[in-house]
Amino acid sequence: MINNMDKLFESVAERGHVCVGLDTSAEYIPEKERHKYPGDAEAILAYNKAIIDAVSDLAACFKVQIAYYEEMGLAGIETYAKTLRYLREKGALVIADCKRGDIADTASRYARAHFEGDFEADFVTLTPYLGMDSIEPWIQWADKKGKGAFVLMRTSNKGRHDFECLELKGESAAPKGRRLYDAVGDKLSELAAAHKGAHGYGAFGAVVGADPQSEEERKEAAAIRAERPNLFFLIPGYGAQGGAASDAALLLREGNGGVVNASRSILKAWQNTENHADADNAFAAQAARRAVIDMRDAILKAAGRT
Amino acid sequence: MINNMDKLFESVAERGHVCVGLDTSAEYIPEKERHKYPGDAEAILAYNKAIIDAVSDLAACFKVQIAYYEEMGLAGIETYAKTLRYLREKGALVIADCKRGDIADTASRYARAHFEGDFEADFVTLTPYLGMDSIEPWIQWADKKGKGAFVLMRTSNKGRHDFECLELKGESAAPKGRRLYDAVGDKLSELAAAHKGAHGYGAFGAVVGADPQSEEERKEAAAIRAERPNLFFLIPGYGAQGGAASDAALLLREGNGGVVNASRSILKAWQNTENHADADNAFAAQAARRAVIDMRDAILKAAGRT
Repeated sequence: MINNMDKLFESVAERGHVCVGLDTSAEYIPEKERHKYPGDAEAILAYNKAIIDAVSDLAACFKVQIAYYEEMGLAGIETYAKTLRYLREKGALVIADCKRGDIADTASRYARAHFEGDFEADFVTLTPYLGMDSIEPWIQWADKKGKGAFVLMRTSNKGRHDFECLELKGESAAPKGRRLYDAVGDKLSELAAAHKGAHGYGAFGAVVGADPQSEEERKEAAAIRAERPNLFFLIPGYGAQGGAASDAALLLREGNGGVVNASRSILKAWQNTENHADADNAFAAQAARRAVIDMRDAILKAAGRT
Repeated sequence: MINNMDKLFESVAERGHVCVGLDTSAEYIPEKERHKYPGDAEAILAYNKAIIDAVSDLAACFKVQIAYYEEMGLAGIETYAKTLRYLREKGALVIADCKRGDIADTASRYARAHFEGDFEADFVTLTPYLGMDSIEPWIQWADKKGKGAFVLMRTSNKGRHDFECLELKGESAAPKGRRLYDAVGDKLSELAAAHKGAHGYGAFGAVVGADPQSEEERKEAAAIRAERPNLFFLIPGYGAQGGAASDAALLLREGNGGVVNASRSILKAWQNTENHADADNAFAAQAARRAVIDMRDAILKAAGRT
C-alpha cells in the first residue's frame, strides 16, 4: 500500500518542504472580514479557506493545531472539522496537531477519532511520555488505511532541557551522552523499520525542532538527522518561532525527509505588507502565498535543491 | 483563595477516595436504553446523567476521558460538553482527562479551552514530555480561578518502562537510581510549593498508577508517596485495570492526598448482577452505586480510615 508518508515524500519532491500551519486566531484576520460573520469560528473558517485556496499548490502539507479551535468551544471544534474536510476535498495532506498520548483502549479510541469520521486527518502528532503502548494502538491504521503520525522527539522550546534532553544512565558513544530523546528515537526507528514505505521512511516519523542556538546544537541537529535515516521529520520552529532555512536544512535528508512548519509568518504575512489598512481575505491570501513562496525557495536553496 | 485542590481534599475527607471515571462507551449501556436515542452520543449522555445522579453523593470527584467522546466526532464532543455542564451544575468536581501537552501560546489556548467556556472543568490532566513550559501556562489559572491539574508522572501501564522509568545519569541515594519520573516529580514538587493550598497540597498534582506487580514495586509506590508530601495524586489502575485497594492505599497520605479512579468496574457493574437481562439505566445506576460504595469502603479500610 502507498502510505501517507510516501505521499508526503512525493509532495515534498514536487512542491518543496513547506508545511502550512493553520493555527488560526481571529486576531490574524483583516478587521473588515472578521466582523462579517456571526462569530470568530465562522470568520476563521472563511479565512482558512482563503489561505488554503491560495497556497495549496505550494504546500507539501498542512498542519492544523487543534488548540486554536478547542479554545472556541463547540463552535471552534466545528470549524476544525470543516477545515479538515475542506483540506481533504482539495486533496491536501493534513496533519492534525493534537499531540495525543494515552494508552490501550483509550488510544484506540483517539485513533478512531482522528483517522476517520468528522476529524479525519492523514497524520496526527503524538506525545510519547507514557511509552510505546501509547503509540502502538495507532500503528494498525498505517497498515489498514495508510495513516501516519509524528511523535514528539526533540523539540526546540526552552523546556526541552527539563526532560527531553536529560542524560540517561549508561555508556554512550555520543559526545553529549545518551538523552531521553535518543531513547524515544530508538523506539521510533524500530517502529519505522517495521512499517516502512516505498521511499524508505516509516509510516510514523518524529517531531524535531529547528532552532539551534549554538554551533554545538547545530551539530546535535545534524547528528539526529544522520542517526535516523528512516524517520521523516516534522520540523517546527521556523519563522515566527526563530528558526532559519539553514537550521531546518540540517534536519532534511537527500533533498527530502522532512517538512518545515510555519504558521504565524504565513497567516499574518499581510500585516507586514504596504497598504494593508484596507486588507481583505483575498489580500491576506496573496500575502500568504508570497510568504510561502519565499519560505519554500529559501529552504530549497538551503537544502541544495536549487 | 480556596483552590480546587483544597475542595478536592475536603471532598475526600467527607466522601472517601473514589473518582468515578465517565469513560462511557455505548456498549456499556443496557440494550433497551441504548436504542431509545437518535444515536450513541445521546444515549451516552442519558446514561452518564443516570450514573451521576446515583453516585454524586459518594464520589470525591468525576473524571471524564475525552477520547471516548472525541471518537464519536462532533456529536460526541457535544455530549462531552453537556456531561461536564451537568456535573458542574450538580456541584461535582470534574477532572477533564485530556492529557494535553503543548507549549507557549498553544498551551494558553488549551488552558482557556478547558478552564472556561463549553469545556470548562475544575482540573485537567497534562503530559510533561515537552518540559515545564508546557505546564506553566496552565498555572495562572490556579491563581486566577482556583483551577488544578494532574500531570503524568509514574503510570501503571507496561509502557512506563520505555521512558518514564528510565534511569538518569548521576548519583542517587535511591536504591533504584533516579528515574525520569523522579525528574518530573521534582519539578512538580517545586510548582506545588509555589502554589500551595490551605491543606498543604499544590494546585497541580500528579498521576501515579496503582498497580504494583511485585514487592519491589510496592516499595517504589510507598517511596513516591513519601517523597512527594505536597502532591495530591490522581491514581488510575484500580478495578478493571488490575489494582487493588491495598495498592491504592500505598499512594494515599494521612487518610487523604489522593483519589482513586475506576471507570469500567462502575459503568459496567450492572452486567455482573443477577437478573440483568432486562436492565435499564435505573438498574445500571443502582449497580454503579453499589460498586462505588464497595470501592469506597475497601479503600477507606485499606487506608486505615475505618
